[in-house]
Amino acid sequence: MHTAVQPRAAGKAGAPAAAIRVAVAGATGYTGQELLRILARHPAVTITAATSSGTTAARKLPALGHIFTGDITPLDPPALARDADIVFLALPDKAAAELAPRLADAGVKVIDLSGAFRLRDQAQRARWYPETHALPGGLAYGLTELERAAVERAQMVANPGCYPTATLLALRPLVAAGLVAKGADIVVDAKSGVSGAGKTPSERTHFSEVHGSVSAYGVFGHRHGAEIEQGVGGPVNFVPHLMPLDRGILSTIYVRVAPGTTEAALASVYEKTFGHEPFVRLVGASLPEIKHVAHTNFCDIGWRVDDSGRAVLVSVIDNLLKGASGQAVQNMNVMLGLDQTTGLL
Amino acid sequence: MHTAVQPRAAGKAGAPAAAIRVAVAGATGYTGQELLRILARHPAVTITAATSSGTTAARKLPALGHIFTGDITPLDPPALARDADIVFLALPDKAAAELAPRLADAGVKVIDLSGAFRLRDQAQRARWYPETHALPGGLAYGLTELERAAVERAQMVANPGCYPTATLLALRPLVAAGLVAKGADIVVDAKSGVSGAGKTPSERTHFSEVHGSVSAYGVFGHRHGAEIEQGVGGPVNFVPHLMPLDRGILSTIYVRVAPGTTEAALASVYEKTFGHEPFVRLVGASLPEIKHVAHTNFCDIGWRVDDSGRAVLVSVIDNLLKGASGQAVQNMNVMLGLDQTTGLL
Amino acid sequence: MHTAVQPRAAGKAGAPAAAIRVAVAGATGYTGQELLRILARHPAVTITAATSSGTTAARKLPALGHIFTGDITPLDPPALARDADIVFLALPDKAAAELAPRLADAGVKVIDLSGAFRLRDQAQRARWYPETHALPGGLAYGLTELERAAVERAQMVANPGCYPTATLLALRPLVAAGLVAKGADIVVDAKSGVSGAGKTPSERTHFSEVHGSVSAYGVFGHRHGAEIEQGVGGPVNFVPHLMPLDRGILSTIYVRVAPGTTEAALASVYEKTFGHEPFVRLVGASLPEIKHVAHTNFCDIGWRVDDSGRAVLVSVIDNLLKGASGQAVQNMNVMLGLDQTTGLL
Amino acid sequence: MHTAVQPRAAGKAGAPAAAIRVAVAGATGYTGQELLRILARHPAVTITAATSSGTTAARKLPALGHIFTGDITPLDPPALARDADIVFLALPDKAAAELAPRLADAGVKVIDLSGAFRLRDQAQRARWYPETHALPGGLAYGLTELERAAVERAQMVANPGCYPTATLLALRPLVAAGLVAKGADIVVDAKSGVSGAGKTPSERTHFSEVHGSVSAYGVFGHRHGAEIEQGVGGPVNFVPHLMPLDRGILSTIYVRVAPGTTEAALASVYEKTFGHEPFVRLVGASLPEIKHVAHTNFCDIGWRVDDSGRAVLVSVIDNLLKGASGQAVQNMNVMLGLDQTTGLL
Repeated sequence: MHTAVQPRAAGKAGAPAAAIRVAVAGATGYTGQELLRILARHPAVTITAATSSGTTAARKLPALGHIFTGDITPLDPPALARDADIVFLALPDKAAAELAPRLADAGVKVIDLSGAFRLRDQAQRARWYPETHALPGGLAYGLTELERAAVERAQMVANPGCYPTATLLALRPLVAAGLVAKGADIVVDAKSGVSGAGKTPSERTHFSEVHGSVSAYGVFGHRHGAEIEQGVGGPVNFVPHLMPLDRGILSTIYVRVAPGTTEAALASVYEKTFGHEPFVRLVGASLPEIKHVAHTNFCDIGWRVDDSGRAVLVSVIDNLLKGASGQAVQNMNVMLGLDQTTGLL
Repeated sequence: MHTAVQPRAAGKAGAPAAAIRVAVAGATGYTGQELLRILARHPAVTITAATSSGTTAARKLPALGHIFTGDITPLDPPALARDADIVFLALPDKAAAELAPRLADAGVKVIDLSGAFRLRDQAQRARWYPETHALPGGLAYGLTELERAAVERAQMVANPGCYPTATLLALRPLVAAGLVAKGADIVVDAKSGVSGAGKTPSERTHFSEVHGSVSAYGVFGHRHGAEIEQGVGGPVNFVPHLMPLDRGILSTIYVRVAPGTTEAALASVYEKTFGHEPFVRLVGASLPEIKHVAHTNFCDIGWRVDDSGRAVLVSVIDNLLKGASGQAVQNMNVMLGLDQTTGLL
Repeated sequence: MHTAVQPRAAGKAGAPAAAIRVAVAGATGYTGQELLRILARHPAVTITAATSSGTTAARKLPALGHIFTGDITPLDPPALARDADIVFLALPDKAAAELAPRLADAGVKVIDLSGAFRLRDQAQRARWYPETHALPGGLAYGLTELERAAVERAQMVANPGCYPTATLLALRPLVAAGLVAKGADIVVDAKSGVSGAGKTPSERTHFSEVHGSVSAYGVFGHRHGAEIEQGVGGPVNFVPHLMPLDRGILSTIYVRVAPGTTEAALASVYEKTFGHEPFVRLVGASLPEIKHVAHTNFCDIGWRVDDSGRAVLVSVIDNLLKGASGQAVQNMNVMLGLDQTTGLL
Repeated sequence: MHTAVQPRAAGKAGAPAAAIRVAVAGATGYTGQELLRILARHPAVTITAATSSGTTAARKLPALGHIFTGDITPLDPPALARDADIVFLALPDKAAAELAPRLADAGVKVIDLSGAFRLRDQAQRARWYPETHALPGGLAYGLTELERAAVERAQMVANPGCYPTATLLALRPLVAAGLVAKGADIVVDAKSGVSGAGKTPSERTHFSEVHGSVSAYGVFGHRHGAEIEQGVGGPVNFVPHLMPLDRGILSTIYVRVAPGTTEAALASVYEKTFGHEPFVRLVGASLPEIKHVAHTNFCDIGWRVDDSGRAVLVSVIDNLLKGASGQAVQNMNVMLGLDQTTGLL
């Protein structure tokens, strides 16, 4: 009996189980398509709407053939509020900032994959997401493993950014446990695949520019840096890099640990935090690789500490799954009281 | 109600459903790991053994953490026969040629992913698989969509090669329907990702040799050519190529069609053959791409015919799934009378 | 004394040698940049103008820093005719169709990298390049090794397409020698890197769409097919494919050879045709790979023939060099009476 | 007159110019092949020997066809000393540690691409290169731009490691100028293509393991870290990462600058250090990319400083050229009193 996967909830054969109605607004982008793929096979939900902006509404989604065969329709907020119990927003920040409160006010649960509601501090929000004027009530930050209680009772979830997800899962437990030296610089050197930049062609994501290349971008000016700083409660030097691969993030985190802190101490904190978490795998000094988590909802975390108190943490995720659509469904499961792995293994 | 995926069989929550015992011999290679990944979440089976050769038995499989957590043990044929109802062989040809008959004789159902039992003609087998001395009874060639009746009653299935799977699903229906002109050359130019070459490092699969390169190999001498020729009953000029990607095969097939045959005639044959098949998607003149089937069990088929009677067929699969482990599980489902998509969507 | 490279012409130290004035119209695309890179270090020429359309004139070309440091200026045909002895056109077909005759009439030598003047047959040209109304006098088709005499005396050279270059260098000598069976189908399955599609971002060249994928396109409708058919004087079934790499083309060519033709007979023809050519390397049955010619002006050709008269030819080039800018400079060298390798090794 | 490239020395047409005899020991690895490629077209030298170990002596080098057509012979130290004025060692550390002093003693100039002689401190050398017992006289560390005077008069050059070359060119000038804050941590997060791992296949460099993946390795234990620390005279937290590309290194360097130091101050130091260097390109805040230096001997350096005194430096090279064979030839040029760009542009 070697199988580790937990038993699933009863499948769709049981009609009532699939009675939860979900909608995806922004269904043709990369995260939208991943949502459709996951939700179409999720045993507890039925997709009642998938929307796109007018110009792409008729677009074919060949990868989803035989998986999701419904129509992609223009966005119609009142219809969404009427036909869905939960709405996923895979929209630009501005569109999400406007739509999310309307849906929540109408009693619909909302999982927002944009950045519009991730920053709690008003000044930070004004700087990075000026289109978001206020935070609605019942809002949770959906870093599932570390915010589960808030997600359980949320009306609306701000799904974390991809870089913050990879980084904070490795870093926040150590900060919370007091293992990170006060005042020392925290450097986060993050490497991402190109799908994180979305589906719109640009020079920066043109194949011939990215293949065989690596580049840094957004130095001192990426809003995911603000989100990471919110998560750890202090300054972080965050530099993202574009890698010649499609999916995945590897975040290398350089910190000073508190005096006397050992690798085993980190292991203990991680084990305590994530020991029972199905989607976090602790690999210690063997260090994780993007390949091992691509096309999954896992976050793999490794770490090393040397005698002089330097620590290197390495965390990897699939940016479209644990960094976006996978975690969004994980949050939905938690909001609905389902096993959080439902539809995700 | 837009969801296209069929209802699943009841999940593992139902204890009896998971009572079928399966084993994987050769569990640490790429196809073996894919088998573990699929079977671990399959609601109707329990993995009772996963074996590897001595030197790799202790090997870590980091990608399978939290998915399959059992032990990898040395191969023990009597134990396999005792502890499993079905055994998947992801072994070298020679090892499979020896082990498969022993297991079948012991009453175990066998799904062999090696090439040892794919060729029915003794002379062909002597040339390409000299280690295989005879074919056992109850053997089916597991090209599921085209051999379902044989698979249903088989004691043992020879799972097709990756190139033949992609090629024959597109080509055999047209040959069977008489749409391919007699006597004209059939050219199969196939492009494969590197994972088809297996997990053992070699100069040919060294990253620095493959990245940024494309090469032809095995001209006039690849045994998958013999398997394709068996499938169509005549000569085929098959040339495989190595591409700088990991997973996927695209097979471009050049034939002459019988006089007067139109694109619509091909569409009609394909629709008749595959119209109800969950894992074959017909895309017609829009032509398929590897990306759309990677990490799935789908085979996407497109076709074009011109006025002069030339036809170009394009077929794509994921070589590790529909071209190996996915189709193997599909065959298992058919052998067990389950919905063939169980565990595969 | 193992060095095979031929002695170069005297370098730029000799002032008169560099007195030939060259201009590049369309200098910021991929082929334009390659031209600047080659010409800037070419010992016999001086770049007197590099132009671009208005919107990109101020564009930075970071790869060319310290190599070409001149200005990119708006296109000014009279200035070009006045300031350059030879003009390279790396422009869209329509712009080249208009500009080339004006420059040639002004006595400037022109090397046109567009497709505007490649097809001699008026009906074919009307179909594929309707913007080209007539062919000027003094025009040569610049497949250097096979058209050298014409290039030597040309006022204007139509530089061949990338697919035709790779394909015709392998195929035309066999057709010319009568080794290809009459009436049998010729199939050309060509695989290209993405840079052949140019520098303008599009969905088809978006990194996330191409990485990990392979696709066929232009079936029965690619104008390079017409150019190949012109070169061999008969029908060819040409299907190009997009590969997940940046530079390089591999063309796999399937023909029937005349009765009794052996691999050695092909070798003999190739040796006679290319034995003294510095940029064609004959590799025979060992078959060539893109990696071996990337970033060079070489074309490597391999071939196999079986007992039944089937032949497979494989030809590889770098699409931006031998398939475009490298061959363009090779043609310039021939037009100027220089050693054809000048600046290209 | 827009051409920036300097006039070359007269080419090989002048017989005396090519009279310098060079040999490459270890000619079939990636750096050895690059050396042959560069030296074969270098106007001032003649390759008199290219050696390999017995098992690979007969190996074909298809990429070098028509470029280097000499024989690859077994290593014969006395013959090397007799037939060459300069010997490049592209050998394993141990072999180089033994051979280099013998050649130098025989009066031959030696450029060693191994790590054997890079570390001056005996304790460090004992730890990282125990096979190197002592440093010979006349030894220079060949970071050309920063050690030119030593290289000019050296009998033997220890060619720097690839990571140290990229890192130290960006970091050492700032340390030397006192712009880096004392006592603050220096983090070097370096990303490399796979060719840096050499030509021998391994699981770590197997295409299917690297494609689509990123991984950290050598944390707290990579000998290039010691070489970087030697270069800056203090501790550095260096973590290399393997990227899914073939050629190139991008080094992201995180430092604290001295109080009041601005971006302009860094620009001033860099301009003073490298303003006249042909192979260093300063790109400032626009940040460099690997693609722009691949297949060249350039090092591109960018930098950013924020108000709080954090600085991010980004440096890119081609690991096989400026990080190995290109810099080796650059050093040869300096040793011979030639223009340092000879054969390298």
